[in-house]
Amino acid sequence: MVPPNTFAGASLDRAGARRRDEAWVQARLRDPASRALAVTREGILVDRDGRTLTRLPLDAIPARGTTVLLGVETDGSALFGVDVEHVHDAARPLAPGARVLGLRAAGALLPQELGGLAAYVSALLGWHRTHPHCSRCGAITDVHEGGHVRRCPVCRAEHHPRTDPVVIMLVLDGERVLLGRQPSWPAGRYSALAGFVEAAESLEEAVAREVLEEAGVQVRDARYVSSQPWPFPSSLMLGFTARYAGGEAVVNDGELDDVRWFTRDQVRAAAAAERDGEDPWERGDANAELLLPPPVAIARRLLDGWLAGDA
Amino acid sequence: MVPPNTFAGASLDRAGARRRDEAWVQARLRDPASRALAVTREGILVDRDGRTLTRLPLDAIPARGTTVLLGVETDGSALFGVDVEHVHDAARPLAPGARVLGLRAAGALLPQELGGLAAYVSALLGWHRTHPHCSRCGAITDVHEGGHVRRCPVCRAEHHPRTDPVVIMLVLDGERVLLGRQPSWPAGRYSALAGFVEAAESLEEAVAREVLEEAGVQVRDARYVSSQPWPFPSSLMLGFTARYAGGEAVVNDGELDDVRWFTRDQVRAAAAAERDGEDPWERGDANAELLLPPPVAIARRLLDGWLAGDA
Repeated sequence: MVPPNTFAGASLDRAGARRRDEAWVQARLRDPASRALAVTREGILVDRDGRTLTRLPLDAIPARGTTVLLGVETDGSALFGVDVEHVHDAARPLAPGARVLGLRAAGALLPQELGGLAAYVSALLGWHRTHPHCSRCGAITDVHEGGHVRRCPVCRAEHHPRTDPVVIMLVLDGERVLLGRQPSWPAGRYSALAGFVEAAESLEEAVAREVLEEAGVQVRDARYVSSQPWPFPSSLMLGFTARYAGGEAVVNDGELDDVRWFTRDQVRAAAAAERDGEDPWERGDANAELLLPPPVAIARRLLDGWLAGDA
Repeated sequence: MVPPNTFAGASLDRAGARRRDEAWVQARLRDPASRALAVTREGILVDRDGRTLTRLPLDAIPARGTTVLLGVETDGSALFGVDVEHVHDAARPLAPGARVLGLRAAGALLPQELGGLAAYVSALLGWHRTHPHCSRCGAITDVHEGGHVRRCPVCRAEHHPRTDPVVIMLVLDGERVLLGRQPSWPAGRYSALAGFVEAAESLEEAVAREVLEEAGVQVRDARYVSSQPWPFPSSLMLGFTARYAGGEAVVNDGELDDVRWFTRDQVRAAAAAERDGEDPWERGDANAELLLPPPVAIARRLLDGWLAGDA
């Protein structure tokens, strides 16, 4: 049984209909029961123990940056997200003991649902940060619907948060799996091939194209496994397995450093060799035959599923 | 056996690596063997018979609008897409007998692969039409990589074509399926529930949220079936089935006119009642109990799969 993907699990009520009511959103902003998560470019505000997201009263945040409505919690109170980039001061934190935790670390350390919330607020505020202007006419747009829409006051265009679908796939051939490595990764690390879905592709077409482009290999029987929000800044990872159907695996388009077949035994040994609590993402090992991606990545969940015999 | 989804199937080599070579792209633009598909806001240029996309030499198009590289065809020649909005004149067509066919009709009438090409070129040129400006700083951006990237000369931001993932799902409960209708649809028509994936949601979470928001119903066991490019303007439909798990089906968030359970027999009868060649999308029938979405829509493929016993 492979655990759920990190960064999924933000299970609060997103209040999709109610947030279109501007008066209701404004009332939530004035409601003393409302709380907010605070985000900077470097990460998200967590409590001293590093295991809880810091929920601040809105009036505890001076000079709020972009403020978005995340939804309504089970106790009925509203939860907002606030960009505190310009007021955050590590020496004088917004709450006693609170500190900023990087988003990837947040995914690894926080309980499932809080990791999901961290991804949600980071993705939404990240979109506002990079989309203040209208892509159609260049004007500054206005925030509506609790931050889920930006509207252009000049050309009236409506803009929605961006979610970029990415296919990520294990190419399987009996007892072996095709993995690749990017030049920037620590020595020894390999992971699943992946790439952005292009205009007017089905997911299955994107899987086949990416594998051919990156590794020169044909595949068949692309099969969806699971999906994962990946807010760096706004990807949605769509995990697949596919069967090897021909071609010799070689680095093809210059995006990868190496592509290589590994046996199930090699992958199992690499998983067993990891020391508890260590994040192989950060660590290189020139002597290691294979370092796996960390559990925070869907690639690792796909590999764990393969080891468990799911694929 | 349900046929593949319309608008998938653009199987040409997209030349993802080579298009990053500006000199290579420029040489393809000068190559007399290169051809182009021509697109307006209303649709795509097709030959007299309406069954073939018109492939024009590039120099047959005066004052070309945005020009994008679609890829390389099997004979080695490059295929471009050109926005001819400003030079298209129905009375003096760019090629003898050529006419503009709406994209939805193109999907219904053209062979699978040409429907895929029509979707691809329309999605890509549609993105350029609505994204000339930098969303970060508002400046006019430059076209690079054969039209697959726009770069800002002022703030250096890089912008990629947008693909918006949408979940679309049949909620199943034994012999019945939950469908909904939008107020703008012809009388009697119902289709699968659907909605945009939001920031930091897994597909399965989006399925559950949308069904609850739109119809007040809980689901479990969301299962991916297939995907479909839906270039109106840039959606990627992700088709699911899900099992009914509780709640009474009622219109919930004001987006739908009605939600209703239909039996498998009712759906089968509705499919049988269609007259050949008729597009139920365009036609209302106040007396009909149920009009199904047309085969061009993945919703119909999902329903056909359910009738065939796939789900």
